[in-house]
Amino acid sequence: MTTFHDAPSDRLSPILLGTAPSHAERARTLVEHCTQGTLCTLMATSPQNEEIGGFPYGSVVSYALDEQANPLLLTSSMAEHTRNFCADARASLFVHEAQSGDPAHNPLALGRVTLLGRIEAVEASAVEATRARYLARHAEARYYAGYRDFGFYRLRVTALRYIGGFGRMSWVDVAAYGTATADPIAPLARGIVDHMNQDHAEALRQLCTHPAGLGEVSAAVLRSVDRYGVEIDAQTPEGPRFVRLGFAAPVADAAAVRAAVIALLRLSRQATSTAHKEHG
Amino acid sequence: MTTFHDAPSDRLSPILLGTAPSHAERARTLVEHCTQGTLCTLMATSPQNEEIGGFPYGSVVSYALDEQANPLLLTSSMAEHTRNFCADARASLFVHEAQSGDPAHNPLALGRVTLLGRIEAVEASAVEATRARYLARHAEARYYAGYRDFGFYRLRVTALRYIGGFGRMSWVDVAAYGTATADPIAPLARGIVDHMNQDHAEALRQLCTHPAGLGEVSAAVLRSVDRYGVEIDAQTPEGPRFVRLGFAAPVADAAAVRAAVIALLRLSRQATSTAHKEHG
Repeated sequence: MTTFHDAPSDRLSPILLGTAPSHAERARTLVEHCTQGTLCTLMATSPQNEEIGGFPYGSVVSYALDEQANPLLLTSSMAEHTRNFCADARASLFVHEAQSGDPAHNPLALGRVTLLGRIEAVEASAVEATRARYLARHAEARYYAGYRDFGFYRLRVTALRYIGGFGRMSWVDVAAYGTATADPIAPLARGIVDHMNQDHAEALRQLCTHPAGLGEVSAAVLRSVDRYGVEIDAQTPEGPRFVRLGFAAPVADAAAVRAAVIALLRLSRQATSTAHKEHG
Repeated sequence: MTTFHDAPSDRLSPILLGTAPSHAERARTLVEHCTQGTLCTLMATSPQNEEIGGFPYGSVVSYALDEQANPLLLTSSMAEHTRNFCADARASLFVHEAQSGDPAHNPLALGRVTLLGRIEAVEASAVEATRARYLARHAEARYYAGYRDFGFYRLRVTALRYIGGFGRMSWVDVAAYGTATADPIAPLARGIVDHMNQDHAEALRQLCTHPAGLGEVSAAVLRSVDRYGVEIDAQTPEGPRFVRLGFAAPVADAAAVRAAVIALLRLSRQATSTAHKEHG
């Protein structure tokens, strides 16, 4: 759904070439990449807080994931949120891409996912496997994983909302999220992006000329890279323009990203030199 | 309330000397220091999502504060959370201290606040003042503050939960939070802490000897500084020990912190040297 503020009318239409990750893949990648989020539960009513019984309550939790990427929690029976979800299992986990160090970066442009569902105690037969999954992700939890008031819980996801920034948002099919794979490039993306912007600004501008087809581009900043391609913010005389360029095939490591970018550039230079010859 | 996991029985009792911030002050400082949080609302029921109607829903929001430190929001009528709180005003805003760059730092040891209350549209007479407050804190919002689908809302706080880490948590009096002042040292604390740990490790150990009264201390790491004093993690032969030392009077800037720490150290060295003479 495109809404008024998602794509302001003064914004130039994006250029989208080639394959892009599905929202299910983007959501899965984000949820696997993060390790903590905000758990939203419903305040259990007690004599001390009758006036806030039923209010949504936010708290921080660390999480791991089961095979279908349902969040696994390790919480104390004395924690507010545990009392809440034991009284009413309805909950959501909100996960937000770590904010970049760039203070000019609008936090509302970063990706986030809300996973909604009911929280259930992990069944006895699955506790050992859950503990192993959880400690693999949160080694520090070994200090309290054995405390008698701590237990493992699962948020069984029944709906999920993905927001990737302006104009990129949807309710995602839970089955598609459950079977999607996380992007293998995600852990490397920050380094690749920084390197390209520092050392290859001219190459990025070249990509905006071809295949993106833009004329004058005063600056081109790589915004992100994923297994399927690159996303560039181009500055044109008409204003900023978003460009997405797909690779010829999905990539799985840094060397393959490098080869795929070089392949794009080679095509780009060939096309530009042909065009020059035709016009020259 | 001290619970089993807040203060495990194998943990040495903390040493607390002098004044410490109240939880109302700590909460107010944290909420003023941050600029975004997770908004928890109740999913409005619609034909498309009957099965998740009434579930708590988390989303990211930027916020400013009114004079009583009630959060002020600027949101679109088309955003999921706006539809939610217009149908049911009950909500909470969860604010979490920015995670330090130290990967060994347990996120559950960082401060966080949950502000619960009802969300109301800002009354027409207060919109201009609210806009000024909001844009002073979020200059980037000037691009959409005027869109016709955006409006200003206030979360009127009726209850708040503060968690400052292990063993430091409470429901805070709303009036005390509303009249508390943010700690003037908070914006400087990170720099002071890093400087002290890099260049003055010996001075920190000295403070653990006196006035904290610890014997052998193999390492002393400054954890935080605030207007009332310093907090140190001391390594002793018996295990890690938390030390809080109050200044003689509250401080309001970096020069005053420096003077207060030097004053503590002077007393410490006098006491230690006297002790040496008595025993020597």
